[in-house]
Amino acid sequence: MKKAVVILSGGMDSTTALFIAKKEGYDIIPVHFNYGQRTQRRELKAFDDICEYAKITNKYIIDLPFFTQIGASALVDTHLEVPTEGIKPGIPITYVSFRNGIFLSIAAAIAEKEKACAVFIGVVEEDSSGYPDCREDFIKKMQNAINAGTKPETVIEIKTPLIHLKKEDIVKEAIKVNAPLELTWSCYKNEDEACGVCDSCRLRLKGFEKAGIKDLT
Amino acid sequence: MKKAVVILSGGMDSTTALFIAKKEGYDIIPVHFNYGQRTQRRELKAFDDICEYAKITNKYIIDLPFFTQIGASALVDTHLEVPTEGIKPGIPITYVSFRNGIFLSIAAAIAEKEKACAVFIGVVEEDSSGYPDCREDFIKKMQNAINAGTKPETVIEIKTPLIHLKKEDIVKEAIKVNAPLELTWSCYKNEDEACGVCDSCRLRLKGFEKAGIKDLT
Repeated sequence: MKKAVVILSGGMDSTTALFIAKKEGYDIIPVHFNYGQRTQRRELKAFDDICEYAKITNKYIIDLPFFTQIGASALVDTHLEVPTEGIKPGIPITYVSFRNGIFLSIAAAIAEKEKACAVFIGVVEEDSSGYPDCREDFIKKMQNAINAGTKPETVIEIKTPLIHLKKEDIVKEAIKVNAPLELTWSCYKNEDEACGVCDSCRLRLKGFEKAGIKDLT
Repeated sequence: MKKAVVILSGGMDSTTALFIAKKEGYDIIPVHFNYGQRTQRRELKAFDDICEYAKITNKYIIDLPFFTQIGASALVDTHLEVPTEGIKPGIPITYVSFRNGIFLSIAAAIAEKEKACAVFIGVVEEDSSGYPDCREDFIKKMQNAINAGTKPETVIEIKTPLIHLKKEDIVKEAIKVNAPLELTWSCYKNEDEACGVCDSCRLRLKGFEKAGIKDLT
């Protein structure tokens, strides 16, 4: 059975990507990163809940304590405020330097070890916060780097099934593949009740609203 | 003053790369990785000694506890033996999956934060253990990925001054740039006295011997 590593934060995008991978027939190996993000505890709970729901046991929880050492992002530095006034042009203060580059590099190492042929990542290019490491151009270049820097027999495709979707289409896709959206967590700020006003909450709310579906979270 | 992040393991190659960067006029930010390698304690001592020698204070020591979780390499899994019978064709058991991809990704995040324009890495392609993540083709592709996945104003060059050198030429180069080779540590196996028979010791010994220079370590 072909194997895929799936980067699973526990948000609605990565969860949908996981259930798309499952539907495509992959044996799934989810990878979660604790990188000192504000909602680390809540995201890990979402990850565990989703793995349990999908009856997955071969999973990796990877601690990355160094992101708070580098800092310079409101997601990992609590001295910086998470913006709540809506998405603006440019790269927001929640951008974590080269986060997906680091995540994909580690996922590639796990994929090589597990003899997986794909890494799924739920990045969204247009309908998103505007992070440079969510763009298709970056993903393609990262795939080239991974295949050049691993064993000759390791051939990894980075799969981004959501990259050009709008948030409402992701909600519809999630329902189509039976992704348990009610178990996911998107809020950047809080761990108890979603704030509803950070960029991530806004994108999620807009997605559900435009899709005409009720968010049960 | 232009800044460069230098990946510094504390071995002779990365130390030489650092002193080349210094000679080229960069303000140096060394980065060291504790990744659960057998000689972690000794390598960190070499790193600290070299930073002190070079009077560098802005440095990063990054803990990566997950490499031992992934395993599958004799450098991070003590159940596997470090080979001592000499370098053979193919990729050896000491290969750590995509290690330099992971190291360069993290170095890129630090470079972006520090507004550095270069990342130095002391990889050696031909006269080495044959790791796929030490090849120039990989380095170029990784540089493309890093520049695509970071802010538009972030432009990072990955510099590999040793990549096509033979070990003896690295020893000569080290002496030319006043790199303190006596402070470096190369052995894969031991932390007290270098074993002299692992691939890394063999490459080092050959380098000194062919260069006609005495190793003071």
